[in-house]
Formats: sequence, C-alpha cells, structure tokens
Amino acid sequence: MSIVQQVLEGNRYALSRVLTQIENDTTEGREALAALFPYTGKAHLIGVTGAPGTGKSSLVNRLAYFYRHPPEGEPKTVAIVAVDPSSPFTGGAILGDRIRMRDLTGDRGVFIRSMASRGALGGLARATAGVVQALDAAGFEVIFIETVGAGQAEVDIARLAHTTLVVEAPGLGDDVQAIKAGILEIADILVVNKADRPGAISTERALIEMLKLAHPSREMVSHHGQMMKVEIPAGGENDSEEWVPPVIKTVATENKGIDELAAAIAKHREFLQKTGEWEARDRLRLSTEVEDLLGETLLRRWQKNMPERKYREVLEQVFARRLAPAEAVESLLSSAQGS
Amino acid sequence: MSIVQQVLEGNRYALSRVLTQIENDTTEGREALAALFPYTGKAHLIGVTGAPGTGKSSLVNRLAYFYRHPPEGEPKTVAIVAVDPSSPFTGGAILGDRIRMRDLTGDRGVFIRSMASRGALGGLARATAGVVQALDAAGFEVIFIETVGAGQAEVDIARLAHTTLVVEAPGLGDDVQAIKAGILEIADILVVNKADRPGAISTERALIEMLKLAHPSREMVSHHGQMMKVEIPAGGENDSEEWVPPVIKTVATENKGIDELAAAIAKHREFLQKTGEWEARDRLRLSTEVEDLLGETLLRRWQKNMPERKYREVLEQVFARRLAPAEAVESLLSSAQGS
Repeated sequence: MSIVQQVLEGNRYALSRVLTQIENDTTEGREALAALFPYTGKAHLIGVTGAPGTGKSSLVNRLAYFYRHPPEGEPKTVAIVAVDPSSPFTGGAILGDRIRMRDLTGDRGVFIRSMASRGALGGLARATAGVVQALDAAGFEVIFIETVGAGQAEVDIARLAHTTLVVEAPGLGDDVQAIKAGILEIADILVVNKADRPGAISTERALIEMLKLAHPSREMVSHHGQMMKVEIPAGGENDSEEWVPPVIKTVATENKGIDELAAAIAKHREFLQKTGEWEARDRLRLSTEVEDLLGETLLRRWQKNMPERKYREVLEQVFARRLAPAEAVESLLSSAQGS
Repeated sequence: MSIVQQVLEGNRYALSRVLTQIENDTTEGREALAALFPYTGKAHLIGVTGAPGTGKSSLVNRLAYFYRHPPEGEPKTVAIVAVDPSSPFTGGAILGDRIRMRDLTGDRGVFIRSMASRGALGGLARATAGVVQALDAAGFEVIFIETVGAGQAEVDIARLAHTTLVVEAPGLGDDVQAIKAGILEIADILVVNKADRPGAISTERALIEMLKLAHPSREMVSHHGQMMKVEIPAGGENDSEEWVPPVIKTVATENKGIDELAAAIAKHREFLQKTGEWEARDRLRLSTEVEDLLGETLLRRWQKNMPERKYREVLEQVFARRLAPAEAVESLLSSAQGS
C-alpha cells in the first residue's frame, strides 16, 4: 500500500513521515501532496494569532478539548499546526508540545505538529499550506493554525484560514494598541484571554472602539457586568451579509468562555457557508498558491539558463553602485538568455 | 533642477515627495531610485525590533538624540524609518510620530518617516529598502529601521541593516522565551529596556543563557549588581573574529544606558568594517534585492503573455481538486505561451 493510501486510511506514522517530506520540500513530499490534493477542502481551518503572552496555546488546547468532548453532537477530530515564524529552531515548539500533552495526550483524534522556519524565506507559509492540506486530506475536521507574533508572516498565514481568531490579553504593554489597528483587518473573532486580569474591561472596550471605527454602520454593545458574555450587534451578520467580529472574553487556564468562543466559531462557519465566502476564501487561497509557485518556478528556470558568470558580472556592477537593482534586472532580462 | 538633484542637496520637501513615490512604486519613484542609487552605501543602517511594549520607539528617540548631541565628536544626521508590518493604516504610526516630536522637533538633522503595509504582500520590505536607499543617498549618516513585532517580516527587514538591535523588556508574558530563541539569530545587540522594572535581572539572565547556547565557546559574564553595565566576554570579538551579541540594560524613558548602547553600536560597526562583514552584508542585501525584483518581473512578463482564459481554466481545475497546484503550474508552463 502506498504511503498516501496509508495516510488516507488514518495511519499516523505515515502521516508524520509525509508531513516531514512536505516540510523539507522533497520530491516524495511534492508527489504525496499532489496525490492527497483531491481529498482536501473539507476541514474547517482556524487561524489563531496574537502577541506573545496572550495565552494562544492554552486557548487552542481548550478549544481542541471542547471539540473532542462536545456537550452535544459528535466529537470532531482536531489537528493543531503550531507555527513559529521567528524561530529557526524547534526548541520552543517542542516545549509547547510538551505542555499540550497533559490535556490531550493519548487521544487519537488529536494530532499536533510544530513548525519552525528553517531560514527558507517565504518558505514557511508554503510549507504550512502543504502541511495543512495533508492534514485536511487525512480527514481532520478542524485544523488550528497557530502562529506566534503579529507581523506580515501572520497575515500570510491567516490567509490560509477560513476563520481567524486574534487573541489579546490585558496589560501587555504600551503599544499593543498600535498593533491592534492592523490586526483587526484579519480578525473574524477577537478574543480577550486572561479576562480575569485587571484591565480586561478596558482592553475589551478598546477593541470595541476600534471595531466601531472599522464598521461605522454597526452599533456595538457590550455588557461589562456580565463576564464571558458577548453580544453580536443587533441585526448582526444576518441583515447585511457583513460579518462584524465579536469580542469574546475567556480565561483559558480555567476553561472559561470556551463554549462561547466555540459558538462564535460555529456561527462564523455558518456565515461563510451561507454567503459563499467559504468557497471564495478557498479560491483565493488556491489562486495565491498557484501564483507563488509559478513565480518561483519561473525564477528557478530562468536562473538555470543564465550563465553564472554573466549574472555575477551584473551583480558586481550593482555592488559598485554603477547599476541600480532595477537597471540590473533590465540588463539581465534584455540579454538573449533566460527568457 | 531635477527632484533628484534637490534631494541630493538636502531639500526635505523633495525628499518627502520622492519617498512617497518610492512607497507607491510609481515610475517617478523608480526613476528617482535609479538616479539616487550611485550615492548610496554610506549610511550605517541600524535595525531595531522587538515585541510590542518593549519601548522601541523611546529607545530610538534617545539614540537619535544622542547622535545629534554626542558627548564628544561631531553630531551625525539621523533618519528614522518606522515600519509597522501589521498595519495597513498609518494611524498608529502617526501617533508614534507625534510622541517623537517632543524630543526631536525642529532639528533639521533628523528625518522621520512612518511606513505601513498597504496590503501589498511582500511589498513592504521592498518599499522599505527603497526608502532607506533614498535616505542614504540624501546623506543621512545613521538610519534606524524600526519594526513592530517579531515575525518573518522583521527578519526580512533585519536583513536590510548592518546592525540589528533586538529589544526586550521584563514581564511581557509567558511565551516571550520562545520568541527569543528565534530572534537571537538576527540580533547583533540585545537590549533589556525598562530595566528598572521587576524581573529585569532574570530577563537579562535568560538572554545570557540563550546566548551561551548559541555561542558555546564563549563565557558570558554579567554584573547584576551594577545597573546599566555590560560585559563583552573576555577575548570577545577580537580573537576569533566572531561577534558575540552583548546584552545592554537601558531605561529609555530616563535616558539610562543610552551611552553604553551607543558604544556597543559603534563597536559593532568597527567589527563589521574590520572583518569585511560590512561589505558582505551590503552584497547580500543587494543580491537579494536583485533576485526578488527579477522573480517579480519574470512573473509579470509571463502573465502578460498568458491568455487570461487559459489561466482561469487551469485555476478552475485546481478549485475542483482535479489538479494539484504544482500540477497546475507544470501544465501552465508546458503550454507554448508564457516562457
């Protein structure tokens, strides 16, 4: 039986092996991805991002546990892909896995994979996309894509997800406000974790204020008195087919607010499916993937045809400031080679 | 007189205009960059990165003030490029500028520019590179490139700099440790800012421990009793031509530790020049810029030759899961078009 067949039948060792091959971008990995691709497109991809110290991992653990032990309905299988774009090592990620194990160990319905950038620029987003596709094909119904940080890499990775959670926590520092403005753009659901800490209400209020700016037509309501309660604005997404990100307060370490958060995720999924957004995001994701791959392939092919010596000569002109980078590219492309 | 000539003669309005054109990647901007390029390569580029809440902006302000009013020697002209990869807006950045103004306003030897990603993926790093080149050509002797966050975007931007400062602060949360592991790779100098806060010593100690792991041959020494003091290990960079990042404690709001930090920056500059690293980093930066530009240009050209309909057809096959992305690229490239 082929390794791809084994993955499709739920063999975890085969899956781990294939994921490693995909991460390393080997021929075996690429072939496996192509063979697995027809089985993708079923999982709910949930991106989770936010600054260090917000408790993202605990939150994802609790959500995973919730999906494995739902108060009603069937349990769902869960995969967690923990991505650390700033880490060329796996050290931190491995530590993260150990902490997770306490909650979820021994459950065959949960699969956890850590990924760290290995210096391959731009490669991490693609490797993550591949790993997520393989997990999707392997039949995991919910896939969390958890990233550390709040930069461009996170935005790239958020584009992989159907639903993006942005996690905040009270009292993380002065310029958290500045970061939120940008991150709001990618948030489908905002989470104020560690909501039992001082400052939780003002963090929530700040988020709601920023949402008001971003969605001026909506009136946002929050019941500060009622801990863990979220109000999706009157009318909400049903009237206008516009999704207004709810703000949910949680205390992951005490398992508080997890059911409300899961409900908001379910609601967002419904919204995506009802409005056609689910398919639209799928198409956008795949189009981007094809274009990125195309760009890389074109560059590799061109470089193979270009004599190394000629390329070096032009670069030397740039180093000497006799040729600007754009002029160098023109000069390289106008030569007979490489087109 | 051409606008480029005006920039070279120190006209600030011309400079602002050119920077906007570069940011927007207009024809005028590209032409200006090419014309300015021969005058680049003189500035000391200093990258400053770290998590939100570490006080990077205050630190850069203080350093800028230090270079403008040095205890000895000539003042240097300073440009600050504040980059927020997570922000598609300029809101946060503008706020940042207002705060800066108090210290540095009215000084013609200081130029501040805020940049926010406008959704152009991968575009921010290139736009930043262009802006930095223009400022370099305009004659600024020290250019700070300050980024919010600690993800891949920061690593990309760090590659623009000769000297990269990674700023930490005590008590920012649980998984700060995990981020440090990766960020150490790009740090030339580590700064523990807000060093008057509880936990500063343990933050410093943790950084030194991680440095030991990264540089096992060195013995790191730190004098905890002596605030604001840094010890570069015995032998240091002189023996082995290896640079061991020093850990410097500062309290930017009280202007403490800024002179030590400036001394470490000067020492790193000397190290770079003595070892040839200065030139090597310059070459790496320019090579990467040429390659990125080449890849984009090849893709744009190819797409221009490819009939839209054919491209859509192949994409539809991908959406329907009949063709994996890699197969789609092969199919597109094997057709007569577009090569």
